[in-house]
Amino acid sequence: MGHGVEVTELFGIGKKYTIGCSERQQLAIIVRDDGIREIYVFDRKDSEHPKTVIELDEEETRRVAAVLGGTFFGD
Amino acid sequence: MGHGVEVTELFGIGKKYTIGCSERQQLAIIVRDDGIREIYVFDRKDSEHPKTVIELDEEETRRVAAVLGGTFFGD
Repeated sequence: MGHGVEVTELFGIGKKYTIGCSERQQLAIIVRDDGIREIYVFDRKDSEHPKTVIELDEEETRRVAAVLGGTFFGD
Repeated sequence: MGHGVEVTELFGIGKKYTIGCSERQQLAIIVRDDGIREIYVFDRKDSEHPKTVIELDEEETRRVAAVLGGTFFGD
């Protein structure tokens, strides 16, 4: 299951999950020890400067994970 | 469980899930009938023009959902 996801320990902060995408973009998700998730979107050509950063608290993370995972049923 | 997520049917395309975030950003996820997920990030002040769009195929979606949902164990 580790295929396509690289996990890096960020001591004192949390864990970083780098996810390779087939598009020109690349994703990195930092799961912070305080529960906040930061999603970074990078251009393939510039892995230093994220194009955008999304910060999700635990409730928001649950919603996004449910929609992406197909376990959200709102109707 | 519908709290915080608004579901809109996009006939012939799929379903749109609008997720309110506590930050200045807002997320919309379109689950297309062909399995592709599009994540749109909007600024609160401009809900017409997304700041960024992320397109995930089914494999990428699984990885992101696993990391966000806390069910990814890479080590």
